[in-house]
Amino acid sequence: MAAAKRIRNRDSAVKVVIVGSIGLDTIKTPHSNAANVLGGSISYACAAASFFARSGMVGVVGYDFPSNYVKMYRDFGLDLTGLKRVEGRTFRWTGEYDKDLISRKTLATELNVFADFAPVLPESYCDAPYVLLANIAPELQLRVLAQMKSPKFVVADTMNMWINQTRAQLLKLIAKVDMLTINDEEARLLAGKTSLKECAAVIAAMGPKYLVIKKGEHGALLFSRSGIFIVPAFPVDRLRDPTGAGDCFAGAFIGAMARGGKISDRNVRQSLLFGSVVASFGVQEFSLGGLSKLTMTAIRERYAALRKMIAV
Amino acid sequence: MAAAKRIRNRDSAVKVVIVGSIGLDTIKTPHSNAANVLGGSISYACAAASFFARSGMVGVVGYDFPSNYVKMYRDFGLDLTGLKRVEGRTFRWTGEYDKDLISRKTLATELNVFADFAPVLPESYCDAPYVLLANIAPELQLRVLAQMKSPKFVVADTMNMWINQTRAQLLKLIAKVDMLTINDEEARLLAGKTSLKECAAVIAAMGPKYLVIKKGEHGALLFSRSGIFIVPAFPVDRLRDPTGAGDCFAGAFIGAMARGGKISDRNVRQSLLFGSVVASFGVQEFSLGGLSKLTMTAIRERYAALRKMIAV
Repeated sequence: MAAAKRIRNRDSAVKVVIVGSIGLDTIKTPHSNAANVLGGSISYACAAASFFARSGMVGVVGYDFPSNYVKMYRDFGLDLTGLKRVEGRTFRWTGEYDKDLISRKTLATELNVFADFAPVLPESYCDAPYVLLANIAPELQLRVLAQMKSPKFVVADTMNMWINQTRAQLLKLIAKVDMLTINDEEARLLAGKTSLKECAAVIAAMGPKYLVIKKGEHGALLFSRSGIFIVPAFPVDRLRDPTGAGDCFAGAFIGAMARGGKISDRNVRQSLLFGSVVASFGVQEFSLGGLSKLTMTAIRERYAALRKMIAV
Repeated sequence: MAAAKRIRNRDSAVKVVIVGSIGLDTIKTPHSNAANVLGGSISYACAAASFFARSGMVGVVGYDFPSNYVKMYRDFGLDLTGLKRVEGRTFRWTGEYDKDLISRKTLATELNVFADFAPVLPESYCDAPYVLLANIAPELQLRVLAQMKSPKFVVADTMNMWINQTRAQLLKLIAKVDMLTINDEEARLLAGKTSLKECAAVIAAMGPKYLVIKKGEHGALLFSRSGIFIVPAFPVDRLRDPTGAGDCFAGAFIGAMARGGKISDRNVRQSLLFGSVVASFGVQEFSLGGLSKLTMTAIRERYAALRKMIAV
């Protein structure tokens, strides 16, 4: 079903453009490890978005990038016109999770081909209405945004490194996007406040109409002009690898927004729930394992289950 | 309004019986301190329950217990027949919060009159349909429960100390109650599992039909035969003192259950939301400060606001 749907979508115009990192991840958890698996913010976000709308990626890999990972992208029905392959090694990340599978430390990062990445959008991407600037240097996010003709809804994700090291550029970016997604720690770092409500007020003044503060396994909070929406996390039986959960969440969100087609409060809330649902599948396996087995039927079933869990 | 309502209730029969600790708390937070303020699980839980139903307390204090604190109890319209005053000093607790106002350490505990507490229920309490066995030694919770004639709904709260030190008695208690409330860390300690869903399955097998796993500022999860309910936390502008939040939550819950009068899924879910709302007022001030200014109108307004925050 899902595969058929993705293939059918292959000839349609790209509705969602996603820029970010593509990496080969080595992940250690207390229960098991994975070496050189497909990772990076785009991989998760594009795979998640693909269930909802035709999505294209803007990213770079080296000549060492395994062809079966490209095949994996194709199996998700992704448009790869914006995927560049250049001389050098692919970006690599090694991380280790604590026994709670929440806190983690980065053991190694190799930028490799990412060091000189200057994204140029294929012509066919520039008219896309929905854009996700996944976690990557704000300078690159700005460069992609500048090439979009008249996007309807732009989401940016970021992380502590950019808040600390390239704050001025990050603020320039934040002022231009419709929605910022950020985790709770990062929100406190960016806003300099303790309570998330106070953080939200400070960040709203920086420009974005929508702010999503992510809280990992506790869900997220949406702050917008029409108030707060408490985004529930779907309680999973067993968490295997939380890497990329935020990217799955953002990717499924922007995809669902595109499918819904309206910038309404209702579409935003429903799309956030879809983000939560797809992220919950993503963390059940390493890498894209949780998403490659996934079908739209399973997404719809879990979405309905999640709706029941918040119904009073 | 609220005060009038409480006074009107004074002559009615006690519907909710709450047993637990009464203490004089000394609390240090990064922003401010409070010395010898009214605390203990009963104080918070009874005050919270008082908004919804006539509530009576089973507890003990020493001769040093300030009379203005007794007056405070009376102002909440509480039935004090079960409050015993004995020779000796009142239970005391001193704690200090980290800068996140979440993690805390106990600096001192003086059991005092609590050491020999053997609760005997007033005759007028034994027919009450709703019972909250707030945090206290399982042996005392069992002793109170044995004196109740035919309670309709019994909730027990507990903590890590009892899980570690008096596990056998705690298990005996858990098998007899309708609902257990416990925080996420304690659930993992009790069940020996990591994922909360797995913990819930283990604890359900111990007997209670309802399990509430509390997650502090992230809300709570209800596990029952009819599935999971994700209990949202109301996002507060400024957290001042989280002490007693779980007791406010449980107290308002049992009070709202009594007011609703039915052991239905709907009443349980709505009552949990009321618990969340009252707890959110409680943490805005030290001791009972957040509750003593509170009115039913303010509770209803925040309840409606919280419902909107989870509506899709």
